[in-house]
Amino acid sequence: MAHALRLAARGLHTTQPNPRVGCVIARSDTVLGTGWHQRAGEPHAEVYALREAGDAARGATAYVTLEPCAHFGRTPPCADALIAAGVGRVVIAHEDPFDKVAGAGIEKLRAAGIGVQVGLMREAAHELNIGFFSRIQRGRPWVRVKLAMSLDGRTALADGASKWITGEAARADVQRWRARASAILSASGTVLADDPHLTVRLPDNEPFVPPLRVVLDTSLRTPANAKVLDDAAPSVLLHAPDVSVPASLADVAHASIRRGDDGRLDLRAALHWLAQRDINEVHVEAGPVLCGALLAAGLADELLVYVAPILLGHTGRPMLTLPPLDDMASRWKLDTVDRRQVGDDTRLQLRPAAAKHEAA
Amino acid sequence: MAHALRLAARGLHTTQPNPRVGCVIARSDTVLGTGWHQRAGEPHAEVYALREAGDAARGATAYVTLEPCAHFGRTPPCADALIAAGVGRVVIAHEDPFDKVAGAGIEKLRAAGIGVQVGLMREAAHELNIGFFSRIQRGRPWVRVKLAMSLDGRTALADGASKWITGEAARADVQRWRARASAILSASGTVLADDPHLTVRLPDNEPFVPPLRVVLDTSLRTPANAKVLDDAAPSVLLHAPDVSVPASLADVAHASIRRGDDGRLDLRAALHWLAQRDINEVHVEAGPVLCGALLAAGLADELLVYVAPILLGHTGRPMLTLPPLDDMASRWKLDTVDRRQVGDDTRLQLRPAAAKHEAA
Repeated sequence: MAHALRLAARGLHTTQPNPRVGCVIARSDTVLGTGWHQRAGEPHAEVYALREAGDAARGATAYVTLEPCAHFGRTPPCADALIAAGVGRVVIAHEDPFDKVAGAGIEKLRAAGIGVQVGLMREAAHELNIGFFSRIQRGRPWVRVKLAMSLDGRTALADGASKWITGEAARADVQRWRARASAILSASGTVLADDPHLTVRLPDNEPFVPPLRVVLDTSLRTPANAKVLDDAAPSVLLHAPDVSVPASLADVAHASIRRGDDGRLDLRAALHWLAQRDINEVHVEAGPVLCGALLAAGLADELLVYVAPILLGHTGRPMLTLPPLDDMASRWKLDTVDRRQVGDDTRLQLRPAAAKHEAA
Repeated sequence: MAHALRLAARGLHTTQPNPRVGCVIARSDTVLGTGWHQRAGEPHAEVYALREAGDAARGATAYVTLEPCAHFGRTPPCADALIAAGVGRVVIAHEDPFDKVAGAGIEKLRAAGIGVQVGLMREAAHELNIGFFSRIQRGRPWVRVKLAMSLDGRTALADGASKWITGEAARADVQRWRARASAILSASGTVLADDPHLTVRLPDNEPFVPPLRVVLDTSLRTPANAKVLDDAAPSVLLHAPDVSVPASLADVAHASIRRGDDGRLDLRAALHWLAQRDINEVHVEAGPVLCGALLAAGLADELLVYVAPILLGHTGRPMLTLPPLDDMASRWKLDTVDRRQVGDDTRLQLRPAAAKHEAA
């Protein structure tokens, strides 16, 4: 199953909006066939593995990271393919949460007399498709907020200067997180201040599905010549319903999202809108206000924080704008999921302590 | 030599004001005797190792982490003891920087026909006694500034509440850093706000030399009943020369330090005063003003930063008060010396990038 998960991870940048799935067909220690899902519309992992195994699949064990599908989607059902190949046993890491599959694949296999075991390396399988599970189960994408700060928690000088907080290795690392996301979310304030491109730059022409660039732009202030609106990747501006679209933005994809009580775009509604458009993982690169608002609303599922070994002093811009706390007991608690060195910087991956249970 | 360094480290909490020194006497792979310096006034590492090796020391190799002394201090010269024991070769990690030794031990050994090699694991030997080297070579202690902050770089809420930012493991870890220090430095502002004890608490009655508690207290505002002035460890208040000592503090150790241009105590003068009193490593636990001032003056040699997986928001107190920067190019650059997990917290040990060369 570890092998199957590694195979599945090869589709990290390309399966959108599908989940990443890997499959290994083996007899005791001998691998007979391997496969992973590469792109939506192309064959599923099981098909590749069965093709490679050929007749040897008969009586063998199939290890699949996600429950095989039982319905006709863009490809025929994989459960049928496994049955037809005569595999003796199927080991599944995680059930498919998708309505049209959910348990039906397992049932179909069992009905055909195949032994099915579910749950091997379940947690790793969940992590691999955390956005897919979030979209199907919670109706909203998995929201990962990327922050780059100095050791003293500052993201920029008082005047906004921030190039570069982190080192080259950290910036390259961010590109991989962008690449695995279905969408990159920012706000018009950031667009106006920094004019970011918000595209993915990977070395060696590695394939990826360009994430949708999403700008929360309540009043449609984004200029038509902003880099985020160029042809390098799809973009969409999300604005308030009462704002009329200026002629300059007539050709730009846009959608209206209701305002929340504070007059700003309702973040939950915006995320729901994205989930409806098959967005699994959202990678947020924005200023302290949007990042803080997502966190305060309980909508930031993960923080990806790059801490640079530099100091900017107390006059620098804060990392997050959060409502003041009454006491230390009400501090925002996070769980550290991962901690590592990236070049000279330290990368921390954290999740709100309360969200841990919700996501599991 | 690695063995000798590990032995030397056993004296980390007890050799003050002496350096930590270890010695291994060996013949090829066979260890004949080991020793380390335990307390000032007690025998040096070489003496213990020679005693254990006995006659077997003749013709053997002695590995010593610091150049053997050649003068009569509180104990007879170790170079003489090595010669008398008839060792064939002496391998030294680092020269003694101390005037009365500096090269004399090596000369004495060589004059006796003993082969001497210097520099094996030199850097590790330097690190082990970084405060001792700093005091002898720079005339000031090695200053290590301990900071505990939230992920967003805050050390307390706006009202000063800060118990507890970091977890139990981090707080226990801090006790070890306090224990290895010759002095713990704070400021009267911190004493008035938090009334800290600034003593060392180690488990299982581990021995240590209680560090001198030093409070920078320009105007002598520390109340006589402050915990930092109790009998648990020695204390001293450093104040401005123009301040008269109140009757309530008449029994308290105090010393005057000249004011700097900003009217505050001259930090360089305070550190010089401490070095003259054999203080090797200073462990700083204070607020953002003193910590920032030490850094801004180029007097903070090391930052020991505990980053807790919590958020306090932009209204929380900043980690360091530093002069505003003109541009990103003038940011304070640090080198990360060590990075590890301590309980749920992340501990970063950093040194100002410029000081790296000065200290080496």
